[in-house]
Parts: sequence; structure tokens; C-alpha cells
Amino acid sequence: MPPSAPPQIPTVQDVAIAAGVSTATVSRCLNEKQKVSLKTRERVMEAVERLGYTPNFNARAMAAKRSHTIGAIIPTMENAIFARGLQAFQETLHQLGYNLLVSSSAYQPKLEAEQIRELVARGAEGLLLIGYERDQAIYDYLDRRSIPTVLAWASSPDKAYPFVGFDNKAAMRGLADKVIEMGHRRIGVISGVIAGNDRAAGRLAGIKESWQSHGFDIENLAIIETPYDIEGGGKAFEKLMAADLKPTVIMCGNDVLATGAISKAREMGLGVPHDVSVTGFDDIELARCVWPPLTTVHVPHRQMGREAANALIDLIEKRSTNISRELDVSIVMRGSLVGL
Amino acid sequence: MPPSAPPQIPTVQDVAIAAGVSTATVSRCLNEKQKVSLKTRERVMEAVERLGYTPNFNARAMAAKRSHTIGAIIPTMENAIFARGLQAFQETLHQLGYNLLVSSSAYQPKLEAEQIRELVARGAEGLLLIGYERDQAIYDYLDRRSIPTVLAWASSPDKAYPFVGFDNKAAMRGLADKVIEMGHRRIGVISGVIAGNDRAAGRLAGIKESWQSHGFDIENLAIIETPYDIEGGGKAFEKLMAADLKPTVIMCGNDVLATGAISKAREMGLGVPHDVSVTGFDDIELARCVWPPLTTVHVPHRQMGREAANALIDLIEKRSTNISRELDVSIVMRGSLVGL
Repeated sequence: MPPSAPPQIPTVQDVAIAAGVSTATVSRCLNEKQKVSLKTRERVMEAVERLGYTPNFNARAMAAKRSHTIGAIIPTMENAIFARGLQAFQETLHQLGYNLLVSSSAYQPKLEAEQIRELVARGAEGLLLIGYERDQAIYDYLDRRSIPTVLAWASSPDKAYPFVGFDNKAAMRGLADKVIEMGHRRIGVISGVIAGNDRAAGRLAGIKESWQSHGFDIENLAIIETPYDIEGGGKAFEKLMAADLKPTVIMCGNDVLATGAISKAREMGLGVPHDVSVTGFDDIELARCVWPPLTTVHVPHRQMGREAANALIDLIEKRSTNISRELDVSIVMRGSLVGL
Repeated sequence: MPPSAPPQIPTVQDVAIAAGVSTATVSRCLNEKQKVSLKTRERVMEAVERLGYTPNFNARAMAAKRSHTIGAIIPTMENAIFARGLQAFQETLHQLGYNLLVSSSAYQPKLEAEQIRELVARGAEGLLLIGYERDQAIYDYLDRRSIPTVLAWASSPDKAYPFVGFDNKAAMRGLADKVIEMGHRRIGVISGVIAGNDRAAGRLAGIKESWQSHGFDIENLAIIETPYDIEGGGKAFEKLMAADLKPTVIMCGNDVLATGAISKAREMGLGVPHDVSVTGFDDIELARCVWPPLTTVHVPHRQMGREAANALIDLIEKRSTNISRELDVSIVMRGSLVGL
């Protein structure tokens, strides 16, 4: 029993009869507006409205051969970094005449794979995915189906897939270089969970690279992995600060973790930055609202969303295949980090 | 020219030939797994995988009469309140065997109307919408198409539509009562934009109701409307504090505005709460991370998401039509508010 099927779904024929035009005219009104006179279009759209007619996927796809729908899959809706970039992505798509449908994979690769198929099945003409680390079978599937796909929030390391993103490792290495140049020699790291997350892995690798390039032993770097939330940041901070030789700076994989660290520091009666410095990554609004404000890596999330939309539509409309772009990020020095 | 159409889309026939079974068996493997032996299913799924076959919407809908897809339209992805509730909504849907597709309307009623049609056209079996204030034509359309719909983040005032939400007006009135009882007589209000936003309107109405019920003149309430962002909150705070008789408390329409107010206070050299108190609404993580932490109204966003998912699926699967639920909210007293 199909519980959601209404008794009478209006068809294109119903609309044509109501508007006194041919079904071909109805179809043109919906798909190639410029070919129909304004007067006819108004009559047809009035009938569409009144009858509650919705061109279904196949009818529309057959008529126009296009769905004008883009799918995006993000790891979580709960972090402002994706929200902000995606909002800009959608706004740009809308200007270009495309709709956006979003799914969240909860950082589960298997769920992401399901959602990719689901979005393709629902007519997505192109996809935005976050990061590059995923099962080769997914890329093979997208290739076979010829689904234009842009990766964001990372630069694909061998540049094999089109991306609009930035180099997480280089960015975090730049911040770690700065921290070490400011005299810090006892660094605690609160990293996001690395398994299946190339952005988190890249950021941690950047800190390690910087540390080693300054001649220090990797074993002296205290690292805790935790999910990207305030609570995780707080707990990891507490653990790192329980060491005999307390870190003088806590470098965090993102601003959310850093916010958790700062809150916990206050709870523990520790002053940031004078008892311990804290750094973040992303430069979401939170970074300027916590006290002291966070030294962090500024990522142009809205620009990334806009450029990813333009790049994806260029791919879909076959204007260009060479669309990859690495965006500049920058270190923002604020009150949460001081030199020794 | 259909640019995104691959040269050869594999069909159900291709899969059947590759797996050496009938097309009916392929269809059963995709839609009624339990009716096919494990061995056959593995063979078919291997062919599905290898050929990159994706059952398209219509074929699947016809075979199974169900899409198991839910659509949600939120005003913005940029506010954590929707993100958090929606993440819980999706997790619960997933447990119930449904997928979620999300669109964001950027607080534009016209865009929301388009997105509702788009989601229905792509096979959404049910919808989650935010608030109740929208064109009657949209409700008529949903009725005609018999699309089960649940409203969240508000309680529909005449209870005409199923909702899982809370009473924004009563909640904010409770906080305003508290503020007035604590001795505040000069209240500045930073409200979200009210046009088309019943939640913002309800919250402002709650403050006005409380103010008048204490015998004060509505004209003595200084109110500024601004978009829900940090910058808007900061600018409005600055304006309100420029009055000859400065407010002793700034009540904000949500935590984001309150965060903007607190940041601006610090910039202006004003101490919160001793120079001026600030209150928020929502109790997102931000509320505990700013300094001082925010007195606010706690809304159970994750619970709302979970219960909305269960309610919507009850409607779709016709288990119950009486699914509306008003959730309890509570006032959380933190350091940003002190008595006079």
C-alpha cells in the first residue's frame, strides 16, 4: 500500500485542458520559458498553481533532459564551517539556475556512499563532496555514471579529482612554525578523529612536519584525538594539562575544539594565554567571540562555496574541465597565543 | 544537448543479462531483498556495482511505490539551532529507514515555496518545515498532494497543522518576567527580522506582553530589528547603548545576537553584566562559550529533531494523525544577567 499516494495526481494533460493549450506548450512553459509568450505562460502557470501540478522527475528530465539539481554531502551539519560554505554554495547555484539538495553523512563513509547513490538516483546532475579520502569504488561509480563532482575543503593530493579547496597540511604547518618561532617547546595537540578524515589528518601532519623540521623529536609531541565538539576539546585539554611537564600551548584541529579548551581552562582556573596559549583552525565566528579571541587559520569558507558552485556548473555545462583551484588561507593572530 | 547524460546509461536489462537473471529478479533484489536468496542477491548486486546501475526515481517508485525520502527546508544553514536539530532529525530518520534531503530558503518565502515543490517533485514522501507562517497556497498545495508535513521550532497557534515545537512567545515572556522581577526597568530589545518569521515575532511579542503586564508603557521599550548574525547584534547593541537613558539589560532574540552584543560591549569597554546585562535565546553551545556565559532560554533542539522524525514517519505510515507535541523549554541563568 502506498500511503502517501494522493487519490488523483494532476497530470500535464489536466493542466493543458485547464489552460486551453497543448501539452507541448505546458512543457515549454516549464522548461523553456523564453519560447512562450508571457500571456500564455501566465495562463499555464495559473493552471499549474491551481491544480497543484508538479512535473515529476522523469517527465521533466525527459522534456528538458536536465534536472538542474545538485547534491552535496557534508560530514555534519553541526559545524559552522560547512554550514557557512554551503550557504554560499547554494546561493551561487541558485543564481545559476540550479537547486541544491544536501545530505549529512555523520562522518560515516558507508553512509556517504549510500547518499551519493541516493542523490544520483534522485537526478543530481553534479555533486559536491568534502575531502578526497574515500573508497576508490565511489570514484569508479561516479566515473561510470559521468557525474561531475567537485571536492571541497581540501586539495586532492595528486590533483586527480577536480577540487576547490586548500592545503590543510601546509596551512597548519604555517601556524605551527609560527608557534615554535615564538618560543614554544612543549606543544599539546588536540586533533580531530583522523580515520576517514583527510582534513584532520592533514592538519596533524602539518604540526608534525613543522616540529620535526625544527629538529625536535616526534615522541615529545603530546597528541589526543577526539570528535570535533566542545566537550571533546575540553576533556582533551584537561588530559594534556595533567602532564608533569605541562604544555605551554595547545594547538587544536579546529575552532570548536579550541573553544572547548578555552572554556575548560577557565573552569580549571587557568588563564589563556598567560598560563597556556591556545590556537584553532577555520576562523568561524566563534573564534572572535570567545575570550580571549582565538589565534587561528582563516579559511575563506564563503569564497570556497561560491567558487565550488561556479566550478561544478562549469563542469556540468562543459565550459571547462580544468577547474581545480587552491585557495589561500592565512594565519590570524589574536589574543589566545603569546610568545614565551 | 544534455551535457550530463553519459553515453550509455546501464539499464535494468543490462544488469539482468550480466547477472544471468530476469529483470523481475533484479527489481526484487533492489526493492524486496528478503524475497531473494542471498546467493542470487550477491550476484545481482555485483552486477549493479560493476555496471554502475542506479535505479532511477520512477523505476524505483513504480517497483516499490515508495521513495523513503524526506525533505526538510530550513531558513538557513548558518545558525547552529537548525543544524543541531536537523542532525538529530536525520539520525532518527535513518534508523527508521528513511533518507533526508535538505534545502535552505535563506529566509525567503518564495524560495521556500519553490523548494517545497522541488522536493515533492523529487519524490519526498513527507516534509519538515520551520514555523507556521507561510502563504495559505502552500498549505493548500500540500493538502492536494497529500504530503504529510510536520512544522517544527514553533507550535502552530490554532493547532491546525501537525507540529513538534514550542511556544516562542510564552518562553520569551517567561524570561522577560524574570528580568523585570530582578529590577530591570530600562530594557533594550534586539529582535530578529519579524516579517515572515513567526518565531522572531513570537519572541518579541512575549517581551511586550510581559512588559505591559507589569504596567509599563510599550513606548518605553527600545526595540531594534536586525538579521540574526553577530554583526547585526553588535550594531544594534551600539545603537541601543547610545540612548541618553542607557538600558540596564539588552534582551536578544537569539544567542547569536546576544554574542554580537557581548563582543561589542567588550569593544566599547563596557562590562557585562555589571554595566549592562545581556540575555539570549536557544542555548546553543555558543551560549556557554562566550564570556560571561549567557542567560538564555534552553530549547531541546536534538529532542525536537528526534521527535519530529518519529512524528512525521507516524503520519506517513499512517500509525497516527494526532502527533503534535509541545516541548518544554526552560530558562538557564548564567553570568550575563544580574539583578539591579
